[in-house]
Amino acid sequence: MNRADCLALDRDDPLAAARERFHLPEGLIYLDGNSLGALPRTTPARLAEVLEQQWGEGLVRSWNTAGWVDAPARVAARLAPLLGAGPDQLMIADSTSINLFKLLWAATRLRPERRVVLMEAGDFPTDAYLAQALAALDPHVHVLRAAPEQLAALLDERVAVLLLSHVHYRTGARHDLAAWTARAHRVGALTLWDLAHSAGVLRCDLDNSGVDFAVGCGYKFLNGGPGAPSFLYVAARHQAAAFNPLQGWFGHARPFTFEADYQAAPGMARWQVGTPSILALAALEAALNVFRDLDPAQLEHKAQALGDIALAALEAQLPDAGFTVLTPREPTARGAQLSLAHPQAWPLCRALAAAGVLADYRPPGVLRMGFSPLLLRHVDVWDAVTVLAELWREGRWRAPQFQQPETVP
Amino acid sequence: MNRADCLALDRDDPLAAARERFHLPEGLIYLDGNSLGALPRTTPARLAEVLEQQWGEGLVRSWNTAGWVDAPARVAARLAPLLGAGPDQLMIADSTSINLFKLLWAATRLRPERRVVLMEAGDFPTDAYLAQALAALDPHVHVLRAAPEQLAALLDERVAVLLLSHVHYRTGARHDLAAWTARAHRVGALTLWDLAHSAGVLRCDLDNSGVDFAVGCGYKFLNGGPGAPSFLYVAARHQAAAFNPLQGWFGHARPFTFEADYQAAPGMARWQVGTPSILALAALEAALNVFRDLDPAQLEHKAQALGDIALAALEAQLPDAGFTVLTPREPTARGAQLSLAHPQAWPLCRALAAAGVLADYRPPGVLRMGFSPLLLRHVDVWDAVTVLAELWREGRWRAPQFQQPETVP
Repeated sequence: MNRADCLALDRDDPLAAARERFHLPEGLIYLDGNSLGALPRTTPARLAEVLEQQWGEGLVRSWNTAGWVDAPARVAARLAPLLGAGPDQLMIADSTSINLFKLLWAATRLRPERRVVLMEAGDFPTDAYLAQALAALDPHVHVLRAAPEQLAALLDERVAVLLLSHVHYRTGARHDLAAWTARAHRVGALTLWDLAHSAGVLRCDLDNSGVDFAVGCGYKFLNGGPGAPSFLYVAARHQAAAFNPLQGWFGHARPFTFEADYQAAPGMARWQVGTPSILALAALEAALNVFRDLDPAQLEHKAQALGDIALAALEAQLPDAGFTVLTPREPTARGAQLSLAHPQAWPLCRALAAAGVLADYRPPGVLRMGFSPLLLRHVDVWDAVTVLAELWREGRWRAPQFQQPETVP
Repeated sequence: MNRADCLALDRDDPLAAARERFHLPEGLIYLDGNSLGALPRTTPARLAEVLEQQWGEGLVRSWNTAGWVDAPARVAARLAPLLGAGPDQLMIADSTSINLFKLLWAATRLRPERRVVLMEAGDFPTDAYLAQALAALDPHVHVLRAAPEQLAALLDERVAVLLLSHVHYRTGARHDLAAWTARAHRVGALTLWDLAHSAGVLRCDLDNSGVDFAVGCGYKFLNGGPGAPSFLYVAARHQAAAFNPLQGWFGHARPFTFEADYQAAPGMARWQVGTPSILALAALEAALNVFRDLDPAQLEHKAQALGDIALAALEAQLPDAGFTVLTPREPTARGAQLSLAHPQAWPLCRALAAAGVLADYRPPGVLRMGFSPLLLRHVDVWDAVTVLAELWREGRWRAPQFQQPETVP
């Protein structure tokens, strides 16, 4: 594998043209689409229309005439094929954190005779914080956090819900979603998957895998913009019995009759709470339109190839620089990222940015490279590692301006 | 009071120029700024900058370089003077519904020996739904809903939290915020005020009134756009002891060190949950900049005058049309709206819209007129009633196209 091979892969890349759908700063290699996806070229015009025509001219009438009321369900339907979800099992609402709370509460209520929420220690913090929040509200619930290699042994008849991230934010390790779901079901447990780092880039196959519940994030590989609304998935078979603990007027069966008592809407509508941000939904909708003709299998295939290139380039150009690859090397065992532990990860990340390669840093000591298959050419990944190798060899990361205290994001 | 008087009031109106800060459709009289505020002229350019420069060019770096991380606190600080709140007692986060849940939970925890959340029957539904949600999660909590005239008798030592709307969404009646807060405190209860229909148009004087907690809405009189983020207020004296039950990573003391266990941030930061929508925050910030030089007392004064005009015009032009004014006539006892009960309220509302006057309808049978002092001239209110009087006299509301089934908003 060398640079010429990468150029050849780019020539044959069926996704090559998708890069043109995004605005990317001149001369920047963006390896951070796993933190904030890039701006789709169509988004500004779409927002301008929503602002100037729908809001400015239509005013309150646009709730009906411009389809604002239906926007959460409409955007959810646009997302469904990317997740392998049949119709009417998704909703767009709130943040991933809040959706985790809703679904974790709902899922534990479906297994009232069990106490345990089993999750992976070291998973993304908000998942643990919300599980802790639930346990604080409901002393019946016990949160059990275990190392990945202990999960299988702990997954037994005491477990109400297995809460896992499809791809680990820090290590990039990918759980086999179908296998873990089947294993949970064998002991009668339900699954809640956090798809923050896989939606829009990996095959999730939610229906075929028998997943019970899932949440995910609109602003990473889905390119919905900073703080884009989150999505949640409830398998059709659970929809009648699962209830949203945060019962707000937008989740009511008849929100606009202003009834005194709450009655949950049928289907996915009950997972809404308050009035949704139409601007944020419009940006997410514009982004999902970019994916219209794209197949998750194709996205995953290219993401794996980009990871392979990064590994090969590290091997070829930085064999003795002290990087420890935290991410599994097997393509199907990793997400669209590579996490490199290194004692100088922070100044290296800063120096990389100064040299036009934007990766990110996660404490302690991890340089994270994300591989968004829509934004990146194969040669970009090779070149990014070349830049890293040069500044390592030349010691440029030692410059004083790269030594300032760690800050993220 | 006649049309000439209104024109004279407009000539002397110190707020007259503020109308130019908004985009308003040609020829429309907009009496629905209490449902969705109008578009500030500066908002589209502000959003374009956030999209194209901050997101498009800055990408993930903008969390630091464009101040995205601080946006919720920054926008909250901009709102504070409008609510009579000293610094560091407000936060922008989530929706009003979700903020009601957070603060209601937190407030009841500060009075653990009491069981009752006292609220007004017929208040905006989401307030009741979230109180019911809390009672469902915590059997110790009991929700007591009472007619307004019974509230005083029921406000006793059993009450943990008095939850009231400053202005009633349906009737436009205004509670005396300072008096009810004092009455609650005399029996040791805490207050949670819903300011959805008063923020940005009435004096709220939160600090001087001794209010404990409050929430409100960014998209009505604050003009933050459809589904704009909500705000919450926690009096400084409660901030150390009051906790957010929805503990997410953005409310952590150190979100970017990704710690395994939750620790609530000091001050108002703990009331955040997940990653906030930067687009929605930018629109709200642009709107609050419109208020920079405006005094809530001035806004309230004009809102009352507009209501007075509507009452006088109804009296003069529609004396025998069967309208029942649900809103108190005393200016200090009403919000910036007038609610008219009428058997034909729905077709009248539709016919008004067709004639260029946008009011709204709330079931059963209420025509609601909102008086945004920034958008409306005095003469607009007079003219709106004239249009209503004409179509009533001519029976135009009987036309088949105005008879379709009721829909809102």
